[in-house]
Amino acid sequence: MPPGRLEAFSDGVIAIIITIMVLELRPPDGADWSALRPLLPKFLAYVMSFVYLGIYWNNHHHLLHVVDRVSGSIMWANLHLLFWLSLVPFTTAWMGEHPGSPSAALYGVSLLLPAIAYTILIRAIISDQLRETRGVKSKLRDAIGGDMKGYASIALYLIGIALAFVRPALSYVMFACVAAIWLIPDRRISRHGA
Amino acid sequence: MPPGRLEAFSDGVIAIIITIMVLELRPPDGADWSALRPLLPKFLAYVMSFVYLGIYWNNHHHLLHVVDRVSGSIMWANLHLLFWLSLVPFTTAWMGEHPGSPSAALYGVSLLLPAIAYTILIRAIISDQLRETRGVKSKLRDAIGGDMKGYASIALYLIGIALAFVRPALSYVMFACVAAIWLIPDRRISRHGA
Amino acid sequence: MPPGRLEAFSDGVIAIIITIMVLELRPPDGADWSALRPLLPKFLAYVMSFVYLGIYWNNHHHLLHVVDRVSGSIMWANLHLLFWLSLVPFTTAWMGEHPGSPSAALYGVSLLLPAIAYTILIRAIISDQLRETRGVKSKLRDAIGGDMKGYASIALYLIGIALAFVRPALSYVMFACVAAIWLIPDRRISRHGA
Amino acid sequence: MPPGRLEAFSDGVIAIIITIMVLELRPPDGADWSALRPLLPKFLAYVMSFVYLGIYWNNHHHLLHVVDRVSGSIMWANLHLLFWLSLVPFTTAWMGEHPGSPSAALYGVSLLLPAIAYTILIRAIISDQLRETRGVKSKLRDAIGGDMKGYASIALYLIGIALAFVRPALSYVMFACVAAIWLIPDRRISRHGA
Repeated sequence: MPPGRLEAFSDGVIAIIITIMVLELRPPDGADWSALRPLLPKFLAYVMSFVYLGIYWNNHHHLLHVVDRVSGSIMWANLHLLFWLSLVPFTTAWMGEHPGSPSAALYGVSLLLPAIAYTILIRAIISDQLRETRGVKSKLRDAIGGDMKGYASIALYLIGIALAFVRPALSYVMFACVAAIWLIPDRRISRHGA
Repeated sequence: MPPGRLEAFSDGVIAIIITIMVLELRPPDGADWSALRPLLPKFLAYVMSFVYLGIYWNNHHHLLHVVDRVSGSIMWANLHLLFWLSLVPFTTAWMGEHPGSPSAALYGVSLLLPAIAYTILIRAIISDQLRETRGVKSKLRDAIGGDMKGYASIALYLIGIALAFVRPALSYVMFACVAAIWLIPDRRISRHGA
Repeated sequence: MPPGRLEAFSDGVIAIIITIMVLELRPPDGADWSALRPLLPKFLAYVMSFVYLGIYWNNHHHLLHVVDRVSGSIMWANLHLLFWLSLVPFTTAWMGEHPGSPSAALYGVSLLLPAIAYTILIRAIISDQLRETRGVKSKLRDAIGGDMKGYASIALYLIGIALAFVRPALSYVMFACVAAIWLIPDRRISRHGA
Repeated sequence: MPPGRLEAFSDGVIAIIITIMVLELRPPDGADWSALRPLLPKFLAYVMSFVYLGIYWNNHHHLLHVVDRVSGSIMWANLHLLFWLSLVPFTTAWMGEHPGSPSAALYGVSLLLPAIAYTILIRAIISDQLRETRGVKSKLRDAIGGDMKGYASIALYLIGIALAFVRPALSYVMFACVAAIWLIPDRRISRHGA
């Protein structure tokens, strides 16, 4: 299977996830400016999740550019990633409506799980590429090296989740920091693949 | 008509179905962990349906790879499949909110009907391929043989629906088993067509 | 502009319309079979609208196959068509929830307006093709001739809308009849263009 | 990165935004024609926003036709545009449900911000094209000149927002005027690029 249709399907799912999140921003009941105030935390939560999904879309795109053939394991690793991403609107809505330790921690988990799924997807691609070249070469492995950035993110999410129980505000900062790290596009792959 | 646009449209519909299902996971009203507990059956129902739709997307993809030309009958057989798939979010939500015999049985029906529609789609493709080659050859028929797996699934869904009236838990297990059978990608077609 | 992106965008919008309609089928509040009964008219309304949107997708597809270049007027005629189609989930939901003369008539209007928009789109394409060939030739005009089927549908919708005020059931039958006429794919164009 | 996938993703997001807006048009609770009356302002708001999103889709399409290569800055400028567009359904719903100064002003802001984002996107593309040709040539800059139309729209939105506090009806007229200006497709680019 060529990567085209996998790309198109993933794009579709991410586009839908990123857009339906805004459905949680219900128009307020009143007609005054003050009616908007309770929506502020929801709006900020939406901004953060929009940025995260934008980052995933961006990196996912670069990732698939070094894939020549999509095997069954890549496809399921990709669906696994999309599954966890699809839960982000839910955790975003809960965090926006009921800020606090539980929702901040769960939001962190909903960022951690796609990060792990993304790492699994990378491993699946590399292992395919090595098998096809009998262990000689993996374009993706050459491109990302030890995937420091991926592992660092996972560590930072874990810290953020722990901080949620101390003070949710600290974990929001942590999650924003991880996003900031990734906003710099993954030049490692884009240099090689795209 | 080349299969490209049929593929793109089907991908779009399946991507939307798979994603709007998560809209049923409404953020809980409370801020505590305990507020999440009632969502557990909904979440599990969502996982199962996500896997099912992933399987359909995957197999549908392999299926269309052996199609060279899309006739009217293939197109309507495909829309018929998409119609039944589009009802899965509804039955998933009911099963998640009101577990019990009726919702488990209806969920089974909502898996059975796409399975039948998929079989009809296969028949439509084979019959087209035979007509075009004056009965000599059908790439799809050669690939899937007697379509044992498809017929076995239909039988298992029927058993699962019957079990729902005895004990819903048993039918959940049955539906999970059918999913497990299909998680192994349909090598029969992928070997030939993709 | 090549027709590819217009096609992809239209497919996306139609795929979303066809899928969000099912969001109106809310899971019932009770756990019993009887809880499903009030959903029956909604379900039937959904079936009819799904078929209609499938027909539009199908014919739209054939239509664009005879278009070589998309001008501004074609693009806006196409968006105009998508606008009216986007209202079908709304009128379907009203008819399903509150069957009666007003909702049956409005449903008819929501079928009539896309039909008129489709006719305008056909005129825009033909007029473009004639301008480009200095009035010599329009592939689409040759294909559809006098567009009897389009005008007949418009007449039947008008009759159906009028019947809604006499007896809604009659207008449902009328709308189902028009759908049946169109279920036969538009061979006129497909013969020439696809 | 070739512009194809950016185009497809943007199309997907815009198609979803344009379509989910209609979800705000809830079927009325009553069965009578009078039940539709309160929906009129919502419907008119929907029409205006549909036209605006159609204009963005149209112009965005022409814009990307002069882009040969998508850099990181173009991609984030594009996501930034999509972010503000994704808020239009929210402001449309508020304006439709609670017409008045605040909602008219906020609606204006939700038109102003994508307009600014669009200008930033244009700047990002031009700056990329100049860098690649060492300052010699930018197809887009040649095509749009001083981008008068873009800057005029921003000025008109600001006036419209100010008018919202005087009389909301005036700002509605202003926003409709800007839409009318843009309904004429952006010939400057289409002449060069498409």
